[in-house]
Amino acid sequence: MALAVANSPDGLTAELEAIGRRARDAAQALAQVPAQARTEALAAGAARLRAARADILAANQRDLAEAKDLSAAMRDRLLLDDKRIEAMAAGLETVAALPDPVGLVDERWTRPNGLVIERVRVPLGVIAIIYESRPNVTADAASLCIRSGSVAILRGGSESFHSSAAILECLRGALRGAGLPEDAVQGVPTRDRAAVGKLLTMSEWIDVIVPRGGKSLIARVQAEARMPVIAHLDGNCHVYVHRDAKLDVARAVTLNAKMRRTGVCGAAESLLVDRDLATSQLPALVGDLLKAGCAIRGDETVRALDPRVTPATEADWSTEFLDAIIAVRVVDGLDQAIAHVNRYGSHHTDAIITEDAGAARRFLDEVDSAIVLHNASTQFADGGEFGFGAEIGISTGKLHARGPVGAAQLTSYKYRVHGSGQVRP
Amino acid sequence: MALAVANSPDGLTAELEAIGRRARDAAQALAQVPAQARTEALAAGAARLRAARADILAANQRDLAEAKDLSAAMRDRLLLDDKRIEAMAAGLETVAALPDPVGLVDERWTRPNGLVIERVRVPLGVIAIIYESRPNVTADAASLCIRSGSVAILRGGSESFHSSAAILECLRGALRGAGLPEDAVQGVPTRDRAAVGKLLTMSEWIDVIVPRGGKSLIARVQAEARMPVIAHLDGNCHVYVHRDAKLDVARAVTLNAKMRRTGVCGAAESLLVDRDLATSQLPALVGDLLKAGCAIRGDETVRALDPRVTPATEADWSTEFLDAIIAVRVVDGLDQAIAHVNRYGSHHTDAIITEDAGAARRFLDEVDSAIVLHNASTQFADGGEFGFGAEIGISTGKLHARGPVGAAQLTSYKYRVHGSGQVRP
Repeated sequence: MALAVANSPDGLTAELEAIGRRARDAAQALAQVPAQARTEALAAGAARLRAARADILAANQRDLAEAKDLSAAMRDRLLLDDKRIEAMAAGLETVAALPDPVGLVDERWTRPNGLVIERVRVPLGVIAIIYESRPNVTADAASLCIRSGSVAILRGGSESFHSSAAILECLRGALRGAGLPEDAVQGVPTRDRAAVGKLLTMSEWIDVIVPRGGKSLIARVQAEARMPVIAHLDGNCHVYVHRDAKLDVARAVTLNAKMRRTGVCGAAESLLVDRDLATSQLPALVGDLLKAGCAIRGDETVRALDPRVTPATEADWSTEFLDAIIAVRVVDGLDQAIAHVNRYGSHHTDAIITEDAGAARRFLDEVDSAIVLHNASTQFADGGEFGFGAEIGISTGKLHARGPVGAAQLTSYKYRVHGSGQVRP
Repeated sequence: MALAVANSPDGLTAELEAIGRRARDAAQALAQVPAQARTEALAAGAARLRAARADILAANQRDLAEAKDLSAAMRDRLLLDDKRIEAMAAGLETVAALPDPVGLVDERWTRPNGLVIERVRVPLGVIAIIYESRPNVTADAASLCIRSGSVAILRGGSESFHSSAAILECLRGALRGAGLPEDAVQGVPTRDRAAVGKLLTMSEWIDVIVPRGGKSLIARVQAEARMPVIAHLDGNCHVYVHRDAKLDVARAVTLNAKMRRTGVCGAAESLLVDRDLATSQLPALVGDLLKAGCAIRGDETVRALDPRVTPATEADWSTEFLDAIIAVRVVDGLDQAIAHVNRYGSHHTDAIITEDAGAARRFLDEVDSAIVLHNASTQFADGGEFGFGAEIGISTGKLHARGPVGAAQLTSYKYRVHGSGQVRP
């Protein structure tokens, strides 16, 4: 894929509208092909990624050479190697093996007048995905769109421009090889930042926008998009240790929720502990975290336990640290814990640790989050762990999809009504 | 409900933000009350509407007296009488009798690690409904929100200001009487048109906006809203008579789809007839419509049948007439019919008349509309006819809800995860 000539705003607009039109045409075609053809394209895409390994690595080297001002962490996110290409290919095979959601009948009922009504799953249409530097998102996002019968317009980070183009060529070749429209997967062939602004206005050709990236990207998309957005916002997740918690469960879950991986959206950012446990369980919980290298920002009771605990500020309760840092607060029971989570949390994923079924029930009912867990780690907030095979993100919105967004969540539905000449009185 | 003092933009902003905050608080409370309490509030609302008949009629007379420049049709839409108040009360009782969607478990599965995951229905939260002159929407919309556990902020047409306020007072009284927060239903107590613009920015307090009204209202809401929108757009609905149609079914369905009521969104606006039927069925179909007083805009073949048929323009194929007018075109079979519907239609509701199951299957699969019917009238596009009890509109969008939007479609979901100490490897 070559850089397009898009020197003028008009040239860019024409280029993007042409992409939109091709996507719409491909969506109409793709919606009608049998699941098997899409499965074959996904499997062939995996084979092509493996076969094109050298080309992809060369494209990635070009990206790395052009990206001079990146931090070490950013360079690592951008870097591809044999192992990461193999992981992408294996990911495509996983998605190929997923049950196809298109055409599933969710419900079927008969009306008193004899009409038979079916609600059946259909593709969403054209999905534009705007993401940042990790080039593997190109393969992950495109594959979920193909599995769900939708077509993808992919706008990756400018740092991964050549890598993404090389990956896209494999997928487009696989679509052609399976007799499907290659425009079911298109990249935006320019680094011009104005392209994002234009995409967000193209509601005629784009049915939904999925932003994946930092807060500023998501805020921009939500402010400017003229079509629905499935956004993945912060994961300010909580573990609440209730007075009837078992100590070993509380210790294991808290440590895992915070420290298994600190950079994922399901990582715990705050720990709430019932005052009844201030002398029995809290010292062990804090000790485990400190020993694991976690910085602790605590209230007065927590600070009294260890000089390494620094004071928690009001802002800490709302912060997604994405690092080995946790805010710890002692609370006066279930009501205060629920109120704290609903006030400071981000409605993503929150857990209660308790042996009291009634307390667990109340926490799960009253905490207004996409995922609520009882006696399990918040790090299970993941489409793979839910059995969805893969995910495009975790939605914290309440419309359309909430929680992990996999192939099934990327579909819509229609009503098929079967009659025998019925007219409405 | 008195007119608020909102002379300054700041006063208006403060007033609306206070409404938003009260709505959010009420939403948290309402989400936790049992279904029975909401059922009682709905039934009590019906009783209060009947008891307040005289007050409501007096408020309606005030609206009618203040509305001087309305057309006769608009005045009729605004007018309330005993029958219409009784219909509103009966509507509340219908919604009271609907199954409560909150807390329903859609799916439950167990992961290999023993985690039990449930997807359970929860309220959307705060729903703002912006609508035009019909005051009965106040009761319909509020009742569906209460049934689905959400709270409503209602911004009615300025013409129905006093009528809506009187209806709202009944519903708020019923909520109080059932021990529920009266702020689960709030009106916007000003006719200031700037209020709509401000509501559309209040994403902190409003989870979803539902506009009900003309194209300009919906276009404005979609352009300005900073939160998700469930919009009801045009119903440019088609009846396609396939070459294997039964004549009596084609005649009955076509006449009903166009003429039963011409002002509803499910009314047919275009008729497509296979060329094979140009001499056998087309004359009868056209004759029925003319006899019923329907104006016909046709292509050459149709015009040759009767001098009263005027020429159809390109624009007619895209027009929602909402009147006794229909555009009629002869097509060269199923492919052309599907292409026509997908090109000119509004993705709302379309029907095929045929005895050929394969042709019906293709039409139902390939026409990209919310509702597709085989051998039945497009006028069945209605939540009541689908068995939903009531509807807030028909969504032509593909995200979240498509087709009739009833109480179930006004919910979201969350995942409850039940563990026994699981941590993620």
